[in-house]
Amino acid sequence: MAEPDFRGLEITVVGLGLIGGSFAKAIRKLSPKNLWAVDIDKKVLELAKSTGVIDEGYLSGEIPLRSSDLVVICVYPELTSKFIKDNMDNFRQGAVITDAAGIKTKVLNEVRMFLRNDLDFVGGHPLAGKEGSGFSKSSADIFLGANYLITPVVTNQEKSLILVEEMVKGIGCRQPVRMDPAKHDEIIALTSQLPHIIAAALMNCSQSDDTGLFIGGSFKDATRVAQINVELWSKLLMENRENTLTQIELFLENIGKIKQMLQEEDNASLEEYLRSAGKAKARLTDND
Amino acid sequence: MAEPDFRGLEITVVGLGLIGGSFAKAIRKLSPKNLWAVDIDKKVLELAKSTGVIDEGYLSGEIPLRSSDLVVICVYPELTSKFIKDNMDNFRQGAVITDAAGIKTKVLNEVRMFLRNDLDFVGGHPLAGKEGSGFSKSSADIFLGANYLITPVVTNQEKSLILVEEMVKGIGCRQPVRMDPAKHDEIIALTSQLPHIIAAALMNCSQSDDTGLFIGGSFKDATRVAQINVELWSKLLMENRENTLTQIELFLENIGKIKQMLQEEDNASLEEYLRSAGKAKARLTDND
Repeated sequence: MAEPDFRGLEITVVGLGLIGGSFAKAIRKLSPKNLWAVDIDKKVLELAKSTGVIDEGYLSGEIPLRSSDLVVICVYPELTSKFIKDNMDNFRQGAVITDAAGIKTKVLNEVRMFLRNDLDFVGGHPLAGKEGSGFSKSSADIFLGANYLITPVVTNQEKSLILVEEMVKGIGCRQPVRMDPAKHDEIIALTSQLPHIIAAALMNCSQSDDTGLFIGGSFKDATRVAQINVELWSKLLMENRENTLTQIELFLENIGKIKQMLQEEDNASLEEYLRSAGKAKARLTDND
Repeated sequence: MAEPDFRGLEITVVGLGLIGGSFAKAIRKLSPKNLWAVDIDKKVLELAKSTGVIDEGYLSGEIPLRSSDLVVICVYPELTSKFIKDNMDNFRQGAVITDAAGIKTKVLNEVRMFLRNDLDFVGGHPLAGKEGSGFSKSSADIFLGANYLITPVVTNQEKSLILVEEMVKGIGCRQPVRMDPAKHDEIIALTSQLPHIIAAALMNCSQSDDTGLFIGGSFKDATRVAQINVELWSKLLMENRENTLTQIELFLENIGKIKQMLQEEDNASLEEYLRSAGKAKARLTDND
C-alpha cells in the first residue's frame, strides 16, 4: 500500500487548545492541501490563521467537514461524540475521523451508535502534553518522540488505521501501537490517571507554610502535574472511574505494604521492595 | 561578626559519595587552606586527589581531623554518629562538625551523648541530590540554588552556626534556614520520604509489559526517584519511620477522599479538590 500523501489531503482540526493547536502546528509541516480548524473561539481562529498555522478557521463544522479527508478532534472527551453526532450530515463521504482523548472505550461505544457506514472513526491517544492549556501553549514539539496509541475496533478499515498512523509518524511521534480500547483504558488509569491523583493528593497533604523550604527534586517532580486543566481532568477521571478505582486499590495495597514494613521495622523486606521498584524503573528507562 | 575566611581554614569531608564528592568539589572553589577527605575506598581518594578535588585523602580520620577546623560528614545517617564517636579523640580543639543527613533528630540525640565540650556539631540538610550514587556522579552544581536547612540545638554556638551557613552560601545554596530538628523530620517525611515511597509503590503497581507504551510525563516524573540508593533510603525511611507513617496516613486519607468522590461520581467535589491542589502547587512554584 502506498504511503498517504498528505499534500493531496484536506484536513480539519477540531478544537485549537493545547493539543489541537499542537496538532495543527505539526500537521502544517506535512503540507496538506488545506488545513482548517473549528473552534468556538473566534480570536484563536484568527490568531491561528494570521500566524499561518491554518488556512481558514470556522466556528462550526459545516463548511470544512464537507471537504475534509481527515478530521482530528481535540475537544474534551464527552464533546467528541457530541461533535461527531451533531455534524453527522456534514462529513465528506469516506472521511476518516480520529480523536486524541486520554480514554477510549466510552467515546468508541458512543460513536458507533450513530456513525454513518461510509465514515471511519479511529480512536487515538498521543502520550503527549505539558502543563497549562490553550492554543498559546501549543507546540508541534510535544509530539517529538512521543508514544501514540491507536485503539482499533472491528469496523475500522485498515486503510483508515494506516492513514492515522502515517499522520502520527509524520508529526514526529514514535511508531504508533495498536491496542484494544478496554486494555488501553485499564493501563492508562495506572500511567496517567493515577499519577495525577497522586500529585493532587500529595499537594493537598502540604499543610505547612514552611513546606517550600523542604522541596527537593522528588516532591517537585511528583507534584508537577498538580497544576492541570481541572475541568478536563475531573472528566477524564470520572469517565475512566472503574479502571481508576481499580488502580487506586492496587496502589493503596502497595502503600499498605510499605506501611507494614515500616510498622514492623522489616528492613529486609523494605530493601527488597525498593530494589524491585528500582529494577522496574530501570527496565522502563531502558526502553525509553 | 566578620565573615569566616575559608582561605584560612582546614576542612575535611568524610565520605566521598555523591553528596560528599559534591561538597568537596564545591568547597574546593572556596580555596580553603587545605581540603582533605576520608573514605574507605582508596581508589576514590586517589581519583579525588589526582583530579585536584582534594589535597590529600585518608582511609581513616586520625591525621586530617587533628588539623581540621571544619568537618563535613557525608556518610549514611547511622554511620555519622559512629564516625564522630570513633574519632572523638582525633578532632582538633574547637572544631565544628556538620553533616548532610536527610533526617536530623536521631543523629543529634546520639552525638550529644558523647561529644566533647569543646566541639560543636551542627546538623545540616542540603535539599540537593540527584539519581545515582558515588563520587563519579558528584557535582558542585547540585548545590546551586538549593534549599539548605540547619537544625540548631541549644548547645550550638552562634559562631559555629554562622561558619556552616557561610559555607552553605559559599557553595551556592540559598540562604540556609534554621529549623527545629523535630519539625525538620516531620516535614521532610512529607516532602522527601513520602514521594520516594510513592515512586516505589507506583512503579511496583506496573504489572504489564506494555506499561512502557503508556508512559507520558506524569508517570515518568512521579517515578523518577524509584531508582535510588536502596540501602540509604531504606535506612532513612526506617529512621524517620514515625513521621513517615504519619505522613503516609495523611496521604492515604487524601487518596481516600478522591476514591470516595469517584465512587460517588461527585464531580463538583473532585473539581474543587483538584483546583485546591493546583493552587497549592502554584503558591509553591511562585516561591521557587
